[in-house]
Amino acid sequence: MILLAALLLFVVSLPPVAAAMQIQPVTGASGVEAWLVEDHSVPVVTIRFAFPGGAALDPAGKSGTASMVASMLDEGAGPYDHAEFHRRLDDLAGQLRFSAAQDEFDGSLRSLTRNLPGNADLLRVALAEPRFAPDAVERIRGEILAGLARQAKNPRSLSGRLWMYDAFEAHPYGSGVEGTEASVAAITRDDLAAFAAERFHRRGLTIGIVGDIGKAEAAALLDRVFGGLPLGSDDSQIAEAKPLDDGALVVSRAAVPQSVVTFGQTGPKRDDPAWYAAYVLNDILGGGGFRGRLMKEIREKRGLAYGVTTQLVPYRHAGLIVGSVATENGRVGESIALVRNEWQRMREEGPTAAELEDAKTYLTGSFPLGLDSTQHIAGVLVQMQQDKLGIDYLDRRAGLIGSVTLDEARAVAKKMFDPAALSFAVVGDPADVKPTRPPKQQKF
Amino acid sequence: MILLAALLLFVVSLPPVAAAMQIQPVTGASGVEAWLVEDHSVPVVTIRFAFPGGAALDPAGKSGTASMVASMLDEGAGPYDHAEFHRRLDDLAGQLRFSAAQDEFDGSLRSLTRNLPGNADLLRVALAEPRFAPDAVERIRGEILAGLARQAKNPRSLSGRLWMYDAFEAHPYGSGVEGTEASVAAITRDDLAAFAAERFHRRGLTIGIVGDIGKAEAAALLDRVFGGLPLGSDDSQIAEAKPLDDGALVVSRAAVPQSVVTFGQTGPKRDDPAWYAAYVLNDILGGGGFRGRLMKEIREKRGLAYGVTTQLVPYRHAGLIVGSVATENGRVGESIALVRNEWQRMREEGPTAAELEDAKTYLTGSFPLGLDSTQHIAGVLVQMQQDKLGIDYLDRRAGLIGSVTLDEARAVAKKMFDPAALSFAVVGDPADVKPTRPPKQQKF
Repeated sequence: MILLAALLLFVVSLPPVAAAMQIQPVTGASGVEAWLVEDHSVPVVTIRFAFPGGAALDPAGKSGTASMVASMLDEGAGPYDHAEFHRRLDDLAGQLRFSAAQDEFDGSLRSLTRNLPGNADLLRVALAEPRFAPDAVERIRGEILAGLARQAKNPRSLSGRLWMYDAFEAHPYGSGVEGTEASVAAITRDDLAAFAAERFHRRGLTIGIVGDIGKAEAAALLDRVFGGLPLGSDDSQIAEAKPLDDGALVVSRAAVPQSVVTFGQTGPKRDDPAWYAAYVLNDILGGGGFRGRLMKEIREKRGLAYGVTTQLVPYRHAGLIVGSVATENGRVGESIALVRNEWQRMREEGPTAAELEDAKTYLTGSFPLGLDSTQHIAGVLVQMQQDKLGIDYLDRRAGLIGSVTLDEARAVAKKMFDPAALSFAVVGDPADVKPTRPPKQQKF
Repeated sequence: MILLAALLLFVVSLPPVAAAMQIQPVTGASGVEAWLVEDHSVPVVTIRFAFPGGAALDPAGKSGTASMVASMLDEGAGPYDHAEFHRRLDDLAGQLRFSAAQDEFDGSLRSLTRNLPGNADLLRVALAEPRFAPDAVERIRGEILAGLARQAKNPRSLSGRLWMYDAFEAHPYGSGVEGTEASVAAITRDDLAAFAAERFHRRGLTIGIVGDIGKAEAAALLDRVFGGLPLGSDDSQIAEAKPLDDGALVVSRAAVPQSVVTFGQTGPKRDDPAWYAAYVLNDILGGGGFRGRLMKEIREKRGLAYGVTTQLVPYRHAGLIVGSVATENGRVGESIALVRNEWQRMREEGPTAAELEDAKTYLTGSFPLGLDSTQHIAGVLVQMQQDKLGIDYLDRRAGLIGSVTLDEARAVAKKMFDPAALSFAVVGDPADVKPTRPPKQQKF
């Protein structure tokens, strides 16, 4: 009934995204490239960019380095100390953000069109000449340690880290992006400076520009901000990896009323030919909101949890499908059995024809919701380049999803979903589960 | 030096906001009115709206009622129970939000253009026929109480509430929008239903629509969602109020390493002829980032705090200027003395000519940064109507700010800033201050 209603309400056709949003390639005299979407409705320009190589390249014993660099770049750079840097940024109403992920280092600048030259210069020195002043390093280290202390009381964050460590152990993906108390304490000023000098280079850099700017000005902007960075070398230092996939159930005891369970196994990487089938299957199993089978079984039928979702996590060097559920300590085993059961059912039966059409329609139709601000669009431009999807991807996206057949979805489900490989990491005080082994690390 | 740099970088002229963004009035057959900005670049429509009358109208002893209604509206309405309501919303990829403020009840819907009829129907029943099912009421009550318990450990939130209670005591503005443990426990299903029946009416309702929709469809949408609501009566039940303005310094002891200080006094209401002068003066004293005098004195010169800002808070029935600062327990007195000193200096000297020009330029020039998503623009449309600023306000805004003269700014500063009226509420364990009296309430 509901599925039919949804199908009737969505008009089955390609959404007119690309019609209104033209992506242009731009190249500066320095050779730096970007994708640009012009939007002159308000005098604002947003730039987003990603350098390849992130937290997974943190030095041994110093996880959290990339993340600490992200917190330090606006703490003083080039001729400006911390106060002067921020005073200039304030005067220019510039909004500058940096963040680290496992495989990349991200940044963004939002600026009024008229102040773009001044803000671009601040971004340039932040990347090319960060100061890493000793007092600022210690202040930021203190803030990071306080954040880690807060996380250490949060079962949701702990459960995710427990699962990742257990699944990847010594591989860099096993360490959290933010590091640990010990690893953050070990990071030196030289580590931060070395990261910036080595990682902020032009090779592999992807950039999206959206807003009130033309092609020529955008090219000049690229040269101004990124043109002086070194060319750099290729990033091929991370080993390919797979999560442990041993079907383990590990528990880290914590005195909380609800346990948080993270679960997952190997999934496709972004360039896997099975990606689009897996993307649709994930939506059917654990899509956001009330769409997923897991939600129906665990929340709607039994009221075991407020929510349960899964997602594909396509790292550069490993693919995952992971999910999580928070439930009463007395009903953790029941929830885990239901997750395993749905995994098994998806493997054996795959989706129904109606589920497949509904998910395809949803994933195709809802996409424009992520395109209604300059920030969102710039993020999509960067992601498309990182994933090498091609500049015409938005025109092709609906077709790629739409072409997944029931046979293909069932074949991918049979190959991908493996209840024996599905592993669980529980943080809490679960009463009705037996761990298969101790976690590979008790403390994070 | 910096001020000059900023002035050079900003071109002194009206920003071309209104040129690109045309606001159209729309009226449905039912008489419901809205302001519309068409933007057909992506197939998404955002509606934001505000009913007059919010938390300040909560029944005595039941503060938190409006806020609880906001959490309950998507928990089941009309023919749909909670699960069905959310399943429909998910199928239609609709994003529905409600929130309560002291003087109003706000809502928003983001929808794909093609799904707008279905999503509009969900919004309609949420407002006109909320169910307030007993089990949902108890679940949401539990979530709100858990949130209040978290806030009770947060000195920043406590300090703000302490100041408001102390300044407004028995007036509704003295109670937090979320209520207290006792008041939330006292709210019944009938209270929630009465709020919805009385407050969701057409009189005073303000609506902004932004996105991929034309004037005729927008008018039909207004009728569809809001046309069936009762006309309702005027909201004139809240007494005009002033904060206590007795220059008190109250302390609520808490075992935290840093004290949080909230400070403030009477400020202008939004329709005060002195508004624009006060708006510029506030920016000079405690504007965001590194621009304000307080930031310079407290952070840059002495390193007493990470940040200190002030803002104008124009309630319908009271005007405030309030700020806050978090500082070491041993240096609270020093920080408070500096705030008082800057208050005195602003009263006596007013701003310098350079400060005035810099603030005017900043406040005028940075405004378009808040207009680069459909959500932001819709919010501005609602605010303009609530504040009765006129549909051409965006064309006039820069002129209104720009016309504040040095003489006027100094005269307003002399009248408005009053160190004897400035009161302080401290949560923490300050070592170097003497309270002038006990707080009027110890627990929130």
